[in-house]
Amino acid sequence: MTEETYKPQELIEVDDELMDDLRDLIQTKSDFLIKNILNDLYPTDIAHIIGRLEFEEGDYLFSLLSPEDQGRVIVELDDDHREHFLETLKSHQITDIVEELPSDEATDIVSELSDEKAEAVLDELSVEDSQDLKELLQYDENTAGGLMQKEVITVQQKDTVKKAIQAVRRAVKEDEGQHFYFVYVVDENDKLVGSLSISNLILLSPARRIYKVMDTDIISVKTDVDQEEVANIFKKYNLVAAPVVDFSGRVVGRITVDDIVDVIEEEASEDIFRLGGVGINERLSTPPLVSLRKRLPWLSVYLVTGLITSSIINIFHSTIESLVILAALMPLVAGMGGNAGTQAITLMVRGIALGEVDFSNARKALFKELSVGLLNGALVGFLAGTVVALVYGNIILGVVMCLAMITNLFIAALMGTLVPLGLKWAKIDPALASAVLVTTCTDVFGFVSFLGFATLFLSMLT
Amino acid sequence: MTEETYKPQELIEVDDELMDDLRDLIQTKSDFLIKNILNDLYPTDIAHIIGRLEFEEGDYLFSLLSPEDQGRVIVELDDDHREHFLETLKSHQITDIVEELPSDEATDIVSELSDEKAEAVLDELSVEDSQDLKELLQYDENTAGGLMQKEVITVQQKDTVKKAIQAVRRAVKEDEGQHFYFVYVVDENDKLVGSLSISNLILLSPARRIYKVMDTDIISVKTDVDQEEVANIFKKYNLVAAPVVDFSGRVVGRITVDDIVDVIEEEASEDIFRLGGVGINERLSTPPLVSLRKRLPWLSVYLVTGLITSSIINIFHSTIESLVILAALMPLVAGMGGNAGTQAITLMVRGIALGEVDFSNARKALFKELSVGLLNGALVGFLAGTVVALVYGNIILGVVMCLAMITNLFIAALMGTLVPLGLKWAKIDPALASAVLVTTCTDVFGFVSFLGFATLFLSMLT
Repeated sequence: MTEETYKPQELIEVDDELMDDLRDLIQTKSDFLIKNILNDLYPTDIAHIIGRLEFEEGDYLFSLLSPEDQGRVIVELDDDHREHFLETLKSHQITDIVEELPSDEATDIVSELSDEKAEAVLDELSVEDSQDLKELLQYDENTAGGLMQKEVITVQQKDTVKKAIQAVRRAVKEDEGQHFYFVYVVDENDKLVGSLSISNLILLSPARRIYKVMDTDIISVKTDVDQEEVANIFKKYNLVAAPVVDFSGRVVGRITVDDIVDVIEEEASEDIFRLGGVGINERLSTPPLVSLRKRLPWLSVYLVTGLITSSIINIFHSTIESLVILAALMPLVAGMGGNAGTQAITLMVRGIALGEVDFSNARKALFKELSVGLLNGALVGFLAGTVVALVYGNIILGVVMCLAMITNLFIAALMGTLVPLGLKWAKIDPALASAVLVTTCTDVFGFVSFLGFATLFLSMLT
Repeated sequence: MTEETYKPQELIEVDDELMDDLRDLIQTKSDFLIKNILNDLYPTDIAHIIGRLEFEEGDYLFSLLSPEDQGRVIVELDDDHREHFLETLKSHQITDIVEELPSDEATDIVSELSDEKAEAVLDELSVEDSQDLKELLQYDENTAGGLMQKEVITVQQKDTVKKAIQAVRRAVKEDEGQHFYFVYVVDENDKLVGSLSISNLILLSPARRIYKVMDTDIISVKTDVDQEEVANIFKKYNLVAAPVVDFSGRVVGRITVDDIVDVIEEEASEDIFRLGGVGINERLSTPPLVSLRKRLPWLSVYLVTGLITSSIINIFHSTIESLVILAALMPLVAGMGGNAGTQAITLMVRGIALGEVDFSNARKALFKELSVGLLNGALVGFLAGTVVALVYGNIILGVVMCLAMITNLFIAALMGTLVPLGLKWAKIDPALASAVLVTTCTDVFGFVSFLGFATLFLSMLT
């Protein structure tokens, strides 16, 4: 055995060359060579490869994997391909896959099956596995119960350290490939009373009683807690794993941080998509017609608000008729307000999501945004007014521009702060509707303030 | 000892009532009672409390904590308060705090000190701690080296399992309060060759040699890898911890997932803020004048593009003069394009950040967005055209609206897809400049297409 044997593997990148090689090997059905390549790849990379292959090629590649690897690959696949496999595979094949997965991932798979197929899979599983899955399937997928897995090590507080170590050994042997970091300690009613990290466990003398050495300062979550709240608890307290308890305090499972990482990313994507007026579940792979259906409602809302704005502009048609340059300049005021409003919304929505902004410091937030709005308005207004006065040789037009800009940037700050807070107060996701409400306001006030001031000063303008 | 003793603590919520109580106790200098309350709180909650107190009150509360707790609290504080403490505390007090922290957090603290104070602290530390910190301070804070901590358990591949367990015991005793999940295995040149999870370690017979039982399939990161890339590796391979190696493959530290959680949130915030045209480091607590300075550049860019757009509109002033209603309707076309463009950008920027969109599937993305753009344009255009034709009793005006809408939503889809990809290709963050580039395009094309078609059909319109 040489040194070389132990060189840690370089991560293999899934590039076009590798894809071409694999397509060729699939064409020539070179099973041995394909298996050799797959052997060097992690499940997530294989999933990525299948995602780039045609369904038929992917089927072939997938069939060369062991049920264990099939399971690990299937949970990493994109929605389209996972759906494809879950439809084409027979129930007994899915059972083989589900058996090898941790219970939380197994539950995700079963919940995506047709009712008939799900029932068949649950029937074919061992009684214990089937019961675990049935329990997990009951929970809303966006709660702690929906995130948790049943594989958890619990010990009685009256047990010895030696017994706890045996429990760890048993768990590691039973659920091969899973990592455990803590044992959770329960009383005789199975209620959670403490925890012990496994690295601490091997420090302790085997004869000691658990309740004397355990950490009683333990953070657990109840099954019905929303996943965003669970993620916040993990972030706040830097947790790697947490036990999940039922309403009476009994340990029913655990959540590990890798699932939390997914939740955090999901929630961030949700905010980004909602701020951008995009359906939260849209992806590149979403078919155009489905995307259309997801985006059209937003565009329709904008269409209605846009038509209302148009009719408000139309009120000022005689002013515009007297001085057509007003028509060219008015979108500038509205657009500036929209941009300043978007800045305020972005800060507020993200601040609310991260728990930095709430009603207790709302007044401070409002005061700050209004100051920034007024100052920005004064600066930008002065700048825009000067340029307009110089370019069009009309000082009064510059003054109108400046006054309109200050007014609209103040409105932008006011609405950009109050609308997200108001939506939060009304228990509506601030990311969902803030943008459309605020830009409608800044559009209307932008046009009205500019054309309004212009009407007031009309005799001096023309 | 009764059952009750072991009830897991309920998390104490930091509410207005608790804050009022604490303020009263600080006023009356009731140290014993304050300490009693602090005892039941986690460091992150104490940091939250100090964040809500006046500086003077916060100073008093902070002084009642042990150096160990001071350290844990200080890393959780908001920027303003942390800066305040780092300025007011004496260097030997900071040394006491830094000594109790893991090396990555200690480095963060020292890097925020003035040069003079940092030197004093490094001088007062033990030689070993000081060397660790000096090494960590060299790395760019946005790389794996900047994220890692030096506390890591390594064993030689020729050692026995027993020796590895001893190494774990030593590490846990030395760095109390820290959690270890893996030991990393190195060869005689200290190069990484494998790993062993601690829960597996206690399964194995003590006499076995490490190289026979270790996992050689280990994922490590080099010190100079960007933190976003590190986060992607953690997400992709569901890691809880990863060893960090230098250019020659020697283990120099480790990164744990709680730091990655922070990175993911930081990167998501960065995208959200950039898409919203807000400086990436702005928070509620940022003073108005600093906020102004951060946001003004964006608004100035919009001002310039807005002025350019105005002068383009002005080209069509004789058309508008002939039919003033055009002035009222033209912002509708531009605004719709802006919204559709923002939808496309949002999907592309998030897709690129999550690694779902790259150059290999760019053509697919473009084709999809163009289909959605054309279909949306046709539907929204038909709707808007019909409403306009009915409201203003002018069918030709409706046709102009419909044609302009289709044109602009197609442009929105085209630019909304190509601009983020182009920026990525030019190695500029797509979130940074996509919005301003695309909305400028949709503004210009919105006005030009609507007023252009109107000019073409002018004889039929009036």
